[in-house]
Amino acid sequence: MTDDGAVDVAGLGACPIPISDYPNVLLAHGGGGSLSQMLIEDMFASTFSNEWLDPLHDGAVIDVDAGRMAVSTDSFVISPLFFPGGDIGSLAVHGTVNDVAMCGATPTAITVGMVIEEGLSMEDLWRIVNSVKEAADEAGVAVATGDTKVVDRGKGDGIFINTTGFGMIPDGVDIRPDRMEAGDVVIVSGTIADHGIAIMSVREGLEFETALESDTASLSSLVGAILSAGGPDVHVLRDPTRGGVASATNEIAQAGRLGIRLHESEIPMNDQVKAACEILGFDPLYVANEGKCIAIVGPDVAEAVLAAMRSHPLGEHAAIIGEVVEDHPGKVFLRSRIGGNRVVDMLSGEQLPRIC
Amino acid sequence: MTDDGAVDVAGLGACPIPISDYPNVLLAHGGGGSLSQMLIEDMFASTFSNEWLDPLHDGAVIDVDAGRMAVSTDSFVISPLFFPGGDIGSLAVHGTVNDVAMCGATPTAITVGMVIEEGLSMEDLWRIVNSVKEAADEAGVAVATGDTKVVDRGKGDGIFINTTGFGMIPDGVDIRPDRMEAGDVVIVSGTIADHGIAIMSVREGLEFETALESDTASLSSLVGAILSAGGPDVHVLRDPTRGGVASATNEIAQAGRLGIRLHESEIPMNDQVKAACEILGFDPLYVANEGKCIAIVGPDVAEAVLAAMRSHPLGEHAAIIGEVVEDHPGKVFLRSRIGGNRVVDMLSGEQLPRIC
Repeated sequence: MTDDGAVDVAGLGACPIPISDYPNVLLAHGGGGSLSQMLIEDMFASTFSNEWLDPLHDGAVIDVDAGRMAVSTDSFVISPLFFPGGDIGSLAVHGTVNDVAMCGATPTAITVGMVIEEGLSMEDLWRIVNSVKEAADEAGVAVATGDTKVVDRGKGDGIFINTTGFGMIPDGVDIRPDRMEAGDVVIVSGTIADHGIAIMSVREGLEFETALESDTASLSSLVGAILSAGGPDVHVLRDPTRGGVASATNEIAQAGRLGIRLHESEIPMNDQVKAACEILGFDPLYVANEGKCIAIVGPDVAEAVLAAMRSHPLGEHAAIIGEVVEDHPGKVFLRSRIGGNRVVDMLSGEQLPRIC
Repeated sequence: MTDDGAVDVAGLGACPIPISDYPNVLLAHGGGGSLSQMLIEDMFASTFSNEWLDPLHDGAVIDVDAGRMAVSTDSFVISPLFFPGGDIGSLAVHGTVNDVAMCGATPTAITVGMVIEEGLSMEDLWRIVNSVKEAADEAGVAVATGDTKVVDRGKGDGIFINTTGFGMIPDGVDIRPDRMEAGDVVIVSGTIADHGIAIMSVREGLEFETALESDTASLSSLVGAILSAGGPDVHVLRDPTRGGVASATNEIAQAGRLGIRLHESEIPMNDQVKAACEILGFDPLYVANEGKCIAIVGPDVAEAVLAAMRSHPLGEHAAIIGEVVEDHPGKVFLRSRIGGNRVVDMLSGEQLPRIC
């Protein structure tokens, strides 16, 4: 600890808010007065500094070129806030950047809105802010503007983060469910269910030989590789987050008014995740992913897209897992290892609450 | 009640989610399964329907022209959710639309991210959704995309709403604190402290002859009138929300590196709000407004801007309340009714928690 109360948090620089004076976030840190201003200027503005944020206006002013802009918003309420492979800060960046990327766009900026519960430790907030910064840098996006509110103890849960992201869609890229055609190939970028099972293992106190880690990651550069390889024959992109591969493919099938057939034996899974799913009684098809995408592409480019994914660090275990069919439009089927077929429905509720 | 359980909520259409089956929001309404999908499609998508939202992709795709785009984000955590003059839904639209307008931009779209506490009544949610819709229509913005999360009972407080807004800044408009000059005139668009006092009156159970109402409103068209009248001589715009006129002018003075002198006798106030401030012990300069703006303009256009504001329904009580001075850069002074001068500081904490 230095004289002014600054504390070095392991692996990070000194917390710019003196932790000896403010060990926890106070209601006043969100009240619009000088404590708010200190938090915003000393912690947020200095960490995220960039040309859009620095003027600290009510909003950011961003120069845009004419074209199609993708916009996506997501609120993150994950519990616990810190988990193997990430935390709510990195997740909040990845989740939104990935939704923008799934529109075929190159994410360039995000906004960050935090709702903090009074009493969150200043050290945890500093960790989360650093994690937002690191994930944003990795994904190539700037934090253009933000907002901070503090709610009374017992009216929140540590911190909730909303991120809204933007990016321009390159000419010639046109990604939407109704572009898929019968005969298209369904590719997943890697092992499924890693994020949800990592979170549940922490919650349930399960231990495995090696730690199960969330796959949380920015898919922006992987999408770049997919689009380079597949060009206009990349028809649909989707990240199977909440509700997993089952919900994502169901939504696509409904919107695209065609059927999707998946092959159970082709779906890549980590052995320990498979074991954990059995212990916990979860169907991995419904478990959330935060660093995987599903690409639906024309058959002529399928091998090229698969190869491009496999040569990307986030796509090593990419696999063709199914195809688009005329039969049973709006439905998803799974061909099991022993050759049977079953309908993969939407779940009515959720398997795993507060997973993102 | 109709056969399918639909209930007409007073003044609104039938709630599209059958209230007899789902009187309250469940965790599963945020789980990504079929209950989530029902809520999103039947309540949100059908209410907010527009060309950007309708594809129900992970994000919206918006055609933009080349130019300067203003972006602002805000999370709303107001308590109570419903108050005289508005509710969290209308407030969430106005707050963000106004921040975009304060950049000199014409707001065109917002995103809406909701964090709902399990157990919120479906009827209250339906009321809030309608209020978002009505406020968005009035402000001329579309809900381009959204997100819904549900947190367990006791981990939230009814509903928190994040809105992020966008709009393009017309050529020739350049609004920022460092454009202000000594001699500029400070104008406020109407009576101050109405929002904060309306909320506090409800919380404290105060009764007045007539109900004190929040001033929550979209300032987009008022800003249009100001810019038409003042052109490039409109230097700064700011809506004095959290922290009131005192905090807003302090932030402007600091960013613009000049002093601001306010004249107490010129600041418009509703008599009942003045009385309530005395009873409650609040300095109205620090009390939040949600439908007022401060314009700092060159002296040559001050009368024209004032006239334009006064002929707008939201600016009837507009008044010149001060001027920009060379002295004491970064500070705000108040000349009192009896001729004394006092420094108007930033508050360290907040007068009124959860005011927006």
